[in-house]
Amino acid sequence: MILQACISERNINSVARMSRLVGKVLVAQGGGPTPVINQSIVGVALEARKFSQVTSIYGAVHGVRGIVEEDFLDLTRETTHNLEQVADTPSSGLLSTRDKPDEEYCARMFKVMQAHDIRYFFYVGGNDSSDTVRIVNEQARAANYELRAIHIPKTIDNDLQENDHCPGFGSAARFVAQAFMGVNLDNRALKGVYLGVIMGRHAGFLTAASSLAQKYVDDGPHLVYVPERHFVMENFLADVDRVYQKHGLCTIAVSEGISDPSGTPMITKLLGKEERDSHGNVQLSGTGALGDLLADEIRDQLKIKRVRSDTFGYLQRSFMGIQSDRDAHEAREVGEKAVQYAMWDNVDGSVVIRRPVLNYSVDYDLVPLEKVAGKTRHMPDAFINAEGNGVTEAFMNYCRPLLGSKMPEPHRLRAPMVKKILH
Amino acid sequence: MILQACISERNINSVARMSRLVGKVLVAQGGGPTPVINQSIVGVALEARKFSQVTSIYGAVHGVRGIVEEDFLDLTRETTHNLEQVADTPSSGLLSTRDKPDEEYCARMFKVMQAHDIRYFFYVGGNDSSDTVRIVNEQARAANYELRAIHIPKTIDNDLQENDHCPGFGSAARFVAQAFMGVNLDNRALKGVYLGVIMGRHAGFLTAASSLAQKYVDDGPHLVYVPERHFVMENFLADVDRVYQKHGLCTIAVSEGISDPSGTPMITKLLGKEERDSHGNVQLSGTGALGDLLADEIRDQLKIKRVRSDTFGYLQRSFMGIQSDRDAHEAREVGEKAVQYAMWDNVDGSVVIRRPVLNYSVDYDLVPLEKVAGKTRHMPDAFINAEGNGVTEAFMNYCRPLLGSKMPEPHRLRAPMVKKILH
Repeated sequence: MILQACISERNINSVARMSRLVGKVLVAQGGGPTPVINQSIVGVALEARKFSQVTSIYGAVHGVRGIVEEDFLDLTRETTHNLEQVADTPSSGLLSTRDKPDEEYCARMFKVMQAHDIRYFFYVGGNDSSDTVRIVNEQARAANYELRAIHIPKTIDNDLQENDHCPGFGSAARFVAQAFMGVNLDNRALKGVYLGVIMGRHAGFLTAASSLAQKYVDDGPHLVYVPERHFVMENFLADVDRVYQKHGLCTIAVSEGISDPSGTPMITKLLGKEERDSHGNVQLSGTGALGDLLADEIRDQLKIKRVRSDTFGYLQRSFMGIQSDRDAHEAREVGEKAVQYAMWDNVDGSVVIRRPVLNYSVDYDLVPLEKVAGKTRHMPDAFINAEGNGVTEAFMNYCRPLLGSKMPEPHRLRAPMVKKILH
Repeated sequence: MILQACISERNINSVARMSRLVGKVLVAQGGGPTPVINQSIVGVALEARKFSQVTSIYGAVHGVRGIVEEDFLDLTRETTHNLEQVADTPSSGLLSTRDKPDEEYCARMFKVMQAHDIRYFFYVGGNDSSDTVRIVNEQARAANYELRAIHIPKTIDNDLQENDHCPGFGSAARFVAQAFMGVNLDNRALKGVYLGVIMGRHAGFLTAASSLAQKYVDDGPHLVYVPERHFVMENFLADVDRVYQKHGLCTIAVSEGISDPSGTPMITKLLGKEERDSHGNVQLSGTGALGDLLADEIRDQLKIKRVRSDTFGYLQRSFMGIQSDRDAHEAREVGEKAVQYAMWDNVDGSVVIRRPVLNYSVDYDLVPLEKVAGKTRHMPDAFINAEGNGVTEAFMNYCRPLLGSKMPEPHRLRAPMVKKILH
């Protein structure tokens, strides 16, 4: 009865509110690629085709930059088959940008939208992209130009507010988990200290996902360091020493964004200099320096010979052939839902993913853009252990379903040892 | 008729030569893990079970070190199901070692083998492992101890003499190719220079495999540098500049082992110091330094802002979940064949893979250990382009079948551009 009541209410509301706005749909992608971001674009494009008030569906090339430069693909003239193939392809099919539009930039975007009679704007991206949607939306309102503007979430960092998790995270997490399964096997075959550096400037979810590689009791990662906790070199070395003494090996996962107690990024501290990207952020990715410098510390201070580090770099967000099917489906759905909110409910906002049941179902919701725009979600305390060098069971239970089905699984020989004769 | 004659002759020979030697089988793995090395171990274990003269099947833990220390698993007491599961697991299930036995070390191994009545010795490894088998074999002969000793090939470097290709290479090559498919997409979405450093000290096969990522005409890697050609910094920078001017981006694959015209490894040259591993070899893996330093050169000399480098590190040889099915099958077969040569033909040697038909069939053969032991195979000239900065079609045709079936494939949007209104 309650269920029926809900459905009825929603139906009535939808009919009452339905958008009659005739015009074009514009969809774009911003920020770092993910393995499933194209699913969202295709979700928008295919769903938008169903509405007669949509005159054309444009895709901006290179995100907001493509909007100011009027570089649009006419996705109305794209085959369904090819859209589906692109959906299965990682990275940003519409290409992306690191441009962070200010008010003036957004005003130029808005002018172009007006010129092309764009009435529905969907932007797939992280919290910066969400903020862009917010500004464009405000400018449209101020100009009395009717525009539906919806932000569609994506980020491998999993750091968007209001979301239980973000499309893109599950697939990147799966890559990291599978990588660490291999690392565990490799570091057991030829024993030593292994350190993997994972993406994540402010949020440690992706680094924490390495823990999903654990199957056997002595499997790594034995130590996990996330940006949510201060990184103290002495504690780190003591941790590594303890694990190494116990297992004869140590496998470590570290977020690129770890900082010392004063808030200085460890990469800056260890390098002795600061390298900044075009946004003025300290450059963390695209270099193996953090891993190398931490490995040097271990070698020098603990006198361990075999210390190796890998920086997972761009592979973790764009690798071809590793996807979480669940993540792909949800990335598709947030695109579809965005169009449905715009068309049936005639509202603006940011699509978010809720998880009413831990293991496992999702609901989609639309929240005001302000709730997501420019904000960062961190790992909850309950996901990080008391020592600040590992994750909790709560995190494992949270993360596991996101990796999708058919996870590969390592196996060990279990044959008995032979009695020695000579020794 | 000819076929029948062959079969008859082989049957006669086999019956005539068949080994009646009663005793144990010992199998071990040496050197760097591969994604399919366990297939070979399992191939040996399961095939050896069929012969009544085999009293037990032992697996040495940590390769030759496990032999001198008498650390043996009794694989006779391992379930078939678990063996099959381990076969599908990357890295070395019996664990591995970097020990390079000399005559004295081999003598100790030989003593242990005698004590345990080991009559069949199978060692899965690269050219060093092959040399170990050769020495043990000679010592057995000198002591009049009847021992069948067979080397089973494996190496992701693909650098064993006499082999068309080596088990392990196809899977690692597939990882590299899939990684570069993703890199191509990522570097197109956010344009810049991308440099991936691939394993390979003396042979460039694995680095060259990155070229299998090419699908669209402007796909990378646009430049490939292998150890078989001298690396000249000025030429490199000119190459990068040319590609960047043309495409607005440049994707590069580099072998860790590239050296300058005087033979000095580039990593040593750029670091300004030499770091050596426990064998006295210049340390190439387990550090992101080469990629970072080459990226610095590009940034400094060509004034390109967005330059990123990744070092693929240990992921390429142990990643869980990326295998070439063909590679896995062949790795299994070389293990089986090794046992068959020992049992039916009663001979020693190194199992090799031939390819009578380019696309595609294989034959297995046994060659004298001296032909493989301690030797390195390099990429043939016909596989490297005249400029020394890329591969030829001959290489692509050689490599493609080795990656196995069901390669993922990237797809691009092909929708037409919209006519600009404001610009």
